[in-house]
Amino acid sequence: MPTPLEYAHNNRDTFLTELIDFLRIPSVSTQAARDADTLEAAHWVARAMTSAGLEHVEVIETKRHPIVYGDWLHAGSHAPTVLVYGHYDVQPAEPLDLWETPPFEPTIRDNYIYARGAADDKGQLYVHVKAVESYLRTDGRLPLNVKFIIEGEEEIGSQNLHEFISHNQTRLAADSALISDSSILGIGKPALVYGLRGNCHVMVDVTGPGRDLHSGSYGGGINNPINALAHLIARLKDEQGHILIPGFYDRVRPLSAEERELLARFPLDESDWLRETGAPTAWGEPEYTLVERLSARPTLDITGMYGGYIGQGAKTVLPARAHAKISMRLVPDQDPNEIIELFRQFAHSVMPPSVKIDIHGAGGSRAALIERDTPPMRAAAAAYEATFHHPAVFMREGGSIPVVNRFESDLGLPTVLMGFGLPGDRIHSPNERFYLPNFDAGIVTSIRYLGLLSQAE
Amino acid sequence: MPTPLEYAHNNRDTFLTELIDFLRIPSVSTQAARDADTLEAAHWVARAMTSAGLEHVEVIETKRHPIVYGDWLHAGSHAPTVLVYGHYDVQPAEPLDLWETPPFEPTIRDNYIYARGAADDKGQLYVHVKAVESYLRTDGRLPLNVKFIIEGEEEIGSQNLHEFISHNQTRLAADSALISDSSILGIGKPALVYGLRGNCHVMVDVTGPGRDLHSGSYGGGINNPINALAHLIARLKDEQGHILIPGFYDRVRPLSAEERELLARFPLDESDWLRETGAPTAWGEPEYTLVERLSARPTLDITGMYGGYIGQGAKTVLPARAHAKISMRLVPDQDPNEIIELFRQFAHSVMPPSVKIDIHGAGGSRAALIERDTPPMRAAAAAYEATFHHPAVFMREGGSIPVVNRFESDLGLPTVLMGFGLPGDRIHSPNERFYLPNFDAGIVTSIRYLGLLSQAE
Repeated sequence: MPTPLEYAHNNRDTFLTELIDFLRIPSVSTQAARDADTLEAAHWVARAMTSAGLEHVEVIETKRHPIVYGDWLHAGSHAPTVLVYGHYDVQPAEPLDLWETPPFEPTIRDNYIYARGAADDKGQLYVHVKAVESYLRTDGRLPLNVKFIIEGEEEIGSQNLHEFISHNQTRLAADSALISDSSILGIGKPALVYGLRGNCHVMVDVTGPGRDLHSGSYGGGINNPINALAHLIARLKDEQGHILIPGFYDRVRPLSAEERELLARFPLDESDWLRETGAPTAWGEPEYTLVERLSARPTLDITGMYGGYIGQGAKTVLPARAHAKISMRLVPDQDPNEIIELFRQFAHSVMPPSVKIDIHGAGGSRAALIERDTPPMRAAAAAYEATFHHPAVFMREGGSIPVVNRFESDLGLPTVLMGFGLPGDRIHSPNERFYLPNFDAGIVTSIRYLGLLSQAE
Repeated sequence: MPTPLEYAHNNRDTFLTELIDFLRIPSVSTQAARDADTLEAAHWVARAMTSAGLEHVEVIETKRHPIVYGDWLHAGSHAPTVLVYGHYDVQPAEPLDLWETPPFEPTIRDNYIYARGAADDKGQLYVHVKAVESYLRTDGRLPLNVKFIIEGEEEIGSQNLHEFISHNQTRLAADSALISDSSILGIGKPALVYGLRGNCHVMVDVTGPGRDLHSGSYGGGINNPINALAHLIARLKDEQGHILIPGFYDRVRPLSAEERELLARFPLDESDWLRETGAPTAWGEPEYTLVERLSARPTLDITGMYGGYIGQGAKTVLPARAHAKISMRLVPDQDPNEIIELFRQFAHSVMPPSVKIDIHGAGGSRAALIERDTPPMRAAAAAYEATFHHPAVFMREGGSIPVVNRFESDLGLPTVLMGFGLPGDRIHSPNERFYLPNFDAGIVTSIRYLGLLSQAE
């Protein structure tokens, strides 16, 4: 009988074939037209969990996309329980014309698999399903109890997951949480994320005239909603990156000297990083370092804007409407609902009566700061080092995983963010990819982690 | 044998059926995908001119869309020659979902015919083709010599027409020009336009990172091209409507006291006008009246803007690119090429090095002011009054007809802008329409004008 590690090694091609199947499903949670696909992805995960040997597997309905639950609880009452979290939903794939191969036709090139969701988060969550399978098909048991909770709304704010957690605290009871939905530092350089930004999203609709007007016949007499929206956007953030919404920074926890020192030691090569972005220069609040700006400072970015004629050539209209989608990343202790309300008050206070403005706040999660000195963190560092032969560094990450704050702060679960992505994985971007050696190493690390965690204290 | 006026009356239904055929052709000059349709419209016009009895009809190739020429020159060397201008191209029909009936399926409701191009300019140019036919099929001759020049690039700046005019001055030699591509004051209230704004168009492309980035992982460290473009737009025009591009107003001819008085007498009902626009309030430079702002002051409007994710829901990207289309309306003596150059210099001077900016200036025409006290103007006023039983008023119009300045200033042709549109025709907007009683009255007015013009001095 092989060991779990040998089983994982021997079945590597099968695991990859299965992942390719998973990646074919366009489970874009924000697009209603993809709802059937998103449901199909939930059932795909449930079948994969059952097939791995997990029990009590269930696809649980919510108001929007279902949650998939499964567990294996035969390690004994003295063994610890780990709650594994992941998400089967993905970001929109648009703009499609920038993909070298179609986003839902997974393609392998140079040791990377290219597909929307490859790294975020299908490839990473599947690591743990295969680690469990590797134990159950060899030892016939796991060294500890596991519970899986895989949601379909991470990319749209996890609102229904929050509600589900509130109503199922006993079912979800555990000693620690494990999440793989982040990146390491580079090839062969593992990293444990201890800080995540929160986020919230606002949609702004500005309406001027009742219809698109001739820009010659009406120009000069009617306020143009695109011009008005541009004035609003210019007032939200100055050209150095300071956010100008009154009260926005009021609750921001200042960076301590100790943490600034820790962040200063973070091995980011700025010129490598800049080359990878393709931008002409780095940019942002001059009072903070790049690492601080990317992980420990709040942001405001227009994620989409449109209005008027956007087809080929010119159309001389004074448009009826203009729209912007705005994402804000938050740090401890900003509250997403309060930030949305501050945004709303400010926008209404500065828009002139010559246009109408509607603001819709969406989702929102608080930032998370995770305790670094815990038994699960130490076990994770050891599992990483045994697999990668390189010590793991601690890092803060600029992205958001809405449930982390919930696990860490509300449920009091020591949480481990054990990422297997790479900085160049292009998550949320065209040509998202996942480094296949990290898929393999991820399964090995997970197998080792589950073993170490069962003995951790 | 009927008179020309009787012939027009008797054949009214046939004329309308023909116009419906013409309106079915989606001759959108700015869209390359419509090039075959635009060519088809040119040939349709050529066939209609031949069928009306015009001679030497020719579809003349240009670098883009052809020019249609035809004439009838048998009135004798002592009879005057009138050059009739119109355009068979139309504006884009988008956004299509706002049309009550499809833009290229002409539909009659309540005495209006709805279709893209109905008023601008297919319905109006066809008036003169039918007036010529009414003479030739009855009298067998016209009271004066006529030359028709119908182009397919009015909506994109008439660049090739300008070149054609330069090379064909003898062929186009005439004593006056006649254009129907404007509106009267209201139902039964004829108007002669004596001023038109010029225009120019600029496309701005702002590029930040090399691809759409994750707004969490990169936000705060990379300048967002939509935010940067919004800052630029906010710097182009203040919130009261003053354009801030240095030098923009330098050549603007100040309004004389006499002209301000003339414009003040213009019978515009501001509340009716506002209701028709559907906007919450009127708006613009507080130092000028609404009529002045709409016709005698230059403007800057964003006609379209887009960047990032514009689909349903949210996508948390820091986008790679942002784009704006900008229309400026010009007054005497602004030069469109100089204005584009001032725009370019200003935009480059204010954009930070953290983004790249590309600017493409397009087309452009100078404003026109037409001499009001000329024999053709008097003949036009008389023809209008005989048909509408209401005196014609003089007005300035905010739109642009690129060729007018060329006819009036460069060729020295006394020009008549004899419009048959109405202010609510929604030209350039969804549900463009043409008032059918004005189609009939237009033919009658044209028949009368050709007769009066042959005797004018």
